[in-house]
Amino acid sequence: MGKYIFGVDLGGTTVKMGLFDPEGNVSEKWEIPTRKENNGEKILPDIADAIKAKMNEKQIADSEVIGVGIGVPGPVDGKGVIYKAPNLGWGEFSIKETFSKLLGGMNVEAGNDANVAALGEMWRGGGKGFNSLVMVTLGTGVGGGIILGGQILTGSTGAAGEIGHIHIVDGEHEKCGCGKTGCLEQYASATGVVRLAKRRLEKDDEPSVLRNEEISAKTVFDAVKEGDKVAIEIAEQFGDYLGKGLAGVASAINPEAFVIGGGVSKAGEILLDYIVKNYKKYVFHGSENVKFTLAELGNDAGIYGAAKLVLG
Amino acid sequence: MGKYIFGVDLGGTTVKMGLFDPEGNVSEKWEIPTRKENNGEKILPDIADAIKAKMNEKQIADSEVIGVGIGVPGPVDGKGVIYKAPNLGWGEFSIKETFSKLLGGMNVEAGNDANVAALGEMWRGGGKGFNSLVMVTLGTGVGGGIILGGQILTGSTGAAGEIGHIHIVDGEHEKCGCGKTGCLEQYASATGVVRLAKRRLEKDDEPSVLRNEEISAKTVFDAVKEGDKVAIEIAEQFGDYLGKGLAGVASAINPEAFVIGGGVSKAGEILLDYIVKNYKKYVFHGSENVKFTLAELGNDAGIYGAAKLVLG
Repeated sequence: MGKYIFGVDLGGTTVKMGLFDPEGNVSEKWEIPTRKENNGEKILPDIADAIKAKMNEKQIADSEVIGVGIGVPGPVDGKGVIYKAPNLGWGEFSIKETFSKLLGGMNVEAGNDANVAALGEMWRGGGKGFNSLVMVTLGTGVGGGIILGGQILTGSTGAAGEIGHIHIVDGEHEKCGCGKTGCLEQYASATGVVRLAKRRLEKDDEPSVLRNEEISAKTVFDAVKEGDKVAIEIAEQFGDYLGKGLAGVASAINPEAFVIGGGVSKAGEILLDYIVKNYKKYVFHGSENVKFTLAELGNDAGIYGAAKLVLG
Repeated sequence: MGKYIFGVDLGGTTVKMGLFDPEGNVSEKWEIPTRKENNGEKILPDIADAIKAKMNEKQIADSEVIGVGIGVPGPVDGKGVIYKAPNLGWGEFSIKETFSKLLGGMNVEAGNDANVAALGEMWRGGGKGFNSLVMVTLGTGVGGGIILGGQILTGSTGAAGEIGHIHIVDGEHEKCGCGKTGCLEQYASATGVVRLAKRRLEKDDEPSVLRNEEISAKTVFDAVKEGDKVAIEIAEQFGDYLGKGLAGVASAINPEAFVIGGGVSKAGEILLDYIVKNYKKYVFHGSENVKFTLAELGNDAGIYGAAKLVLG
């Protein structure tokens, strides 16, 4: 049995990597740029080279490596085949096979980045101790990853966990990045909170500290903590939409927990208060007691989850 | 290896039973009443007696029985423990253990009735050939059962698949059976279609054949088939709500198929047209091609699924 696992989080601009032991302790973390030219043909060779260089540096033999896990920004099925990743210029191919070949036959496991991050939070983060959870990443968009029975739910075409594109609002006139309108992501992402805030501020002239500041998810929730009435209304609206969306998910899959991460979640426990209060209004009673926790691994969730992929 | 499996569908008034072979062919079907007095203490002994009588009649030895599967109206976890079934007067106990004891140690598997029906449709009905599907039963209420990777998704507290209680409409003034308001069940069940129809008819005086008839899901969809404009509007509203709810489910779990059953589904393919058209408006593009089929087993889905439970 080997002693080392590499966890790789492949992003649109940067590849994050970590060297792990089987208990999930990381001894090294480093990054390389993502070179996307020529349909991303250099990306996997670059990562393979970086891993081999690290093995050389640390004098790690092939036989000591249990495997390499990688999370990628696109739909990946249970066999490690990616359907497409327009971000990277990639079409459909088996990451598992291609990457393993580049690594001299090492064991490779691949997954979608949001799903892999969910696995990481379950293993060593805010989802520790749970076996079935939904990770919700409130960042530029709203990402989702679902773990059931300790395993990633990939879905029939790798499109499970797209929580951000659950339809929440009828009659929205702005378009979501996905091309439809009224998606959860339009209200619960970092830009979504700004959208809600601007709309509320335009509605009337009620005084608010937000009128003198650049509006961001951070300034909104900072104002909530100071008791700003308008900011509290915005947080209620945010919590209503997100609570409603997550209630629908829970009514369907009845998980043990929701783990809330991403930039917006830096607001902390107060964010959970607004989500949970509204969630309980909408959810089926059998799922009323689902736990809500904050993510703990931040940008490292991806490398942790990628390493865990290898351990199964 | 045995040759026989008993499938039991325990309902609030009747227990349906079937004798199956391992390929899913049923050779006998029969029913007994559900005796609910004294907190339902006679229910399982009655069923055990009925099974033993059938074995006696057909001269089936214990060793020839692979097992007995049973679907029950309440939340059941993956180990065959029911949390409660107020309908039957039951509290929490292991159906698997208790029922097996009554059957002289036979192998017993237990599941929630809606989940078990979904398994039945996958095995021998409208979901044949699929490995992950959501069964939606449009009856008195809206029931749901989710199968992932060929296995029932029970959820962390046996409350998965509660599709009917996904919140769909804000500001509803009538209460759902679950105590909340705006649940999918209030619009997409048999009584839900009647609710939508009555509200539409009250709105104005536009002529419709529905004004001269008793309103039911059947009369509404019959009128749709005749081209009645008002009935078509009602069907659109029904399809919009149900399509929206199922789109949310698909955005989360990306199944291969939805199987639509229950009394309302007797309207046939036209029902699917209204659901699918609206579903596509709302769903994340990665799940746009999820299949929709009609259930085929009717009231027998439960006994089929219960038998399949035993086969795993």
